Amino acid sequence: MFKLLKKSNKSQARLGSLKTAHGILPTPFFMPIATKAAVKNLTADDIKVLGSPILLSNTYHLYLTPGMEVMKMAGGLHKFMDWNGAILTDSGGFQVFSLSKIRKLLPGGVEFRSHLDGSKHILTPKKVLEIQKIIGSDIAMILDVCPPSMAKREEVAEAVKLTSKWAKMAKQAIMKGNFGNKQLHFGIIQGGIFRDLREKSLKELVDLNFDGYAVGGLAVGETNHEMYEVLDYLTPLMPEKKPRYLMGVGTPENIIEAVKRGVDMFDCVIPTREARHGRLYCFLGKGLKYETINMTNAKYKNDFSSINNTNLKKYSKAYLHHLFKTGEPLAMRLATLNNLDFYLKLMACIRQDILKGKI
Amino acid sequence: MFKLLKKSNKSQARLGSLKTAHGILPTPFFMPIATKAAVKNLTADDIKVLGSPILLSNTYHLYLTPGMEVMKMAGGLHKFMDWNGAILTDSGGFQVFSLSKIRKLLPGGVEFRSHLDGSKHILTPKKVLEIQKIIGSDIAMILDVCPPSMAKREEVAEAVKLTSKWAKMAKQAIMKGNFGNKQLHFGIIQGGIFRDLREKSLKELVDLNFDGYAVGGLAVGETNHEMYEVLDYLTPLMPEKKPRYLMGVGTPENIIEAVKRGVDMFDCVIPTREARHGRLYCFLGKGLKYETINMTNAKYKNDFSSINNTNLKKYSKAYLHHLFKTGEPLAMRLATLNNLDFYLKLMACIRQDILKGKI
Repeated sequence: MFKLLKKSNKSQARLGSLKTAHGILPTPFFMPIATKAAVKNLTADDIKVLGSPILLSNTYHLYLTPGMEVMKMAGGLHKFMDWNGAILTDSGGFQVFSLSKIRKLLPGGVEFRSHLDGSKHILTPKKVLEIQKIIGSDIAMILDVCPPSMAKREEVAEAVKLTSKWAKMAKQAIMKGNFGNKQLHFGIIQGGIFRDLREKSLKELVDLNFDGYAVGGLAVGETNHEMYEVLDYLTPLMPEKKPRYLMGVGTPENIIEAVKRGVDMFDCVIPTREARHGRLYCFLGKGLKYETINMTNAKYKNDFSSINNTNLKKYSKAYLHHLFKTGEPLAMRLATLNNLDFYLKLMACIRQDILKGKI
Repeated sequence: MFKLLKKSNKSQARLGSLKTAHGILPTPFFMPIATKAAVKNLTADDIKVLGSPILLSNTYHLYLTPGMEVMKMAGGLHKFMDWNGAILTDSGGFQVFSLSKIRKLLPGGVEFRSHLDGSKHILTPKKVLEIQKIIGSDIAMILDVCPPSMAKREEVAEAVKLTSKWAKMAKQAIMKGNFGNKQLHFGIIQGGIFRDLREKSLKELVDLNFDGYAVGGLAVGETNHEMYEVLDYLTPLMPEKKPRYLMGVGTPENIIEAVKRGVDMFDCVIPTREARHGRLYCFLGKGLKYETINMTNAKYKNDFSSINNTNLKKYSKAYLHHLFKTGEPLAMRLATLNNLDFYLKLMACIRQDILKGKI
């Protein structure tokens, strides 16, 4: 399922390949986010043209709308959005804790009210797996408890405890064989910035033998330094022959630093969200150097150089500036195409650099 | 420049071809609207794929933003938006009278304040030509005075008088040869729903010998019956060997009725605007029969039939319904692609029907 192809001499970075039911993915990779069955402003075909072999979608959102009845009738998310690459869905845990204002932790799951209409729902480890089975995710995440970055030690300890308990319940459900062999299941390590809690969480999840392991509860408000510190002690303890996924990360710097610490998989709203605000990621020559530019800045009014030299070379910065200034929706589409192209090329560049021994 | 290829026996409908600096266009045709140098949610490439040989853009909007300095540096609108089909630009008259709340008619033009920032501007017949020369329009419209539909006879008479005066000023500027030979210039007939004023306006414009003639001041609030009545007496008086353009029209019925009355060219915001509100135009079998459906209607939640059987056949109505319900911007793009595809196919169907003697 996961092949480790190369380990760097310079860092913990590694090259690998992850086999899913919808393709073999070279690692490290970045997943564009299709929260509600669509990457903002793009079709699945656009993502294919951009060259991403995988998308991330959100269990919590899809569960609430269109809902599982529609998803079942559609034959899963691949058919629903016409995407034949791989799909990873998160566990819903993060959204329950960040979006839903009313929620109650139960020993067997979490009760919450929808942020859309206030309706009451319960997610359990098994139910989250059932939902992701209906979605048809290639990689399904195990339900976790994700405390905020400012949470006190006791709260984080409780989250680790429940996350392990739920992971065990999920594993039991998986062992009963209701979820097919095609789907990969990843456990999510919690523990905030507390080393002993992180190590405890990791050990308890590894004992359950999941297909891969994610580091959750980072990129939730802690400093970059704190994030890197957690990775510094955590990734060396993670199973070498299983993929490692750092959830919700991050800036290009975050990704490069995490790759150097042995992480294989990433997702983040940054490229798509920044695009909608007119902020573009642009490479500076070859290599990993880049700049971010704000297309609404007046200096681009007369800048007739291309937006980028790949997928948007026929459009000038002056044109994109005009589209943003006049509120044309096309602006967001073009900016999104630019930023995802940048992130995907960044990952290709990182893989090249690992191969060449530069990272 | 304009070739009349066939005249119907059943109606005033006609088939023709209009030669522009950017392609030969079969008439009757419909022009998608790229108000501010972009069709909402679409690139110029998208329009090319949809198969439209022409776009309409707005002099008033382009003049205010990005402004003529940028347009000049860009080398014109074709290069600015990467479109190599034909472009028609309106005169700006309609927008000055509909968007700008403060304006003053002068003998030689119109003074107005920008609806964006209140800045003061003057458009004159010559200036409007100069602007359209910088834009690089294949078809440029002559500055006109467009009164509202409820205008009294005296106001409409005054509009006709000024429109003729300005047309003469424009023609003098064109005769001086500053505007090249490549651009076509169309005069705009005003006169509201007053037959004698329409006939007067037409005669005065025809005397000036423009490359084509537009009927302006319709689709501004009058009834369909009143619109058709104007066309009934007006088009038989229009030069047969010159293209006839009905500005701002309309629904598919309006277009079919106007084609039967001898109109060759159309533009309208309906397909793109309705798309943004979730309303889709769909053919019912072959021929001109169609329905409009509201994608936000709950009945499409479980409708897994294709959006249409041409450019969007891979996406279901259920998917589009979901995108609209969750506010995904992709919804508007897909709906726009559907509606423009419909309008362009409608025109192709109309041309076929004229060819076969059905209209």
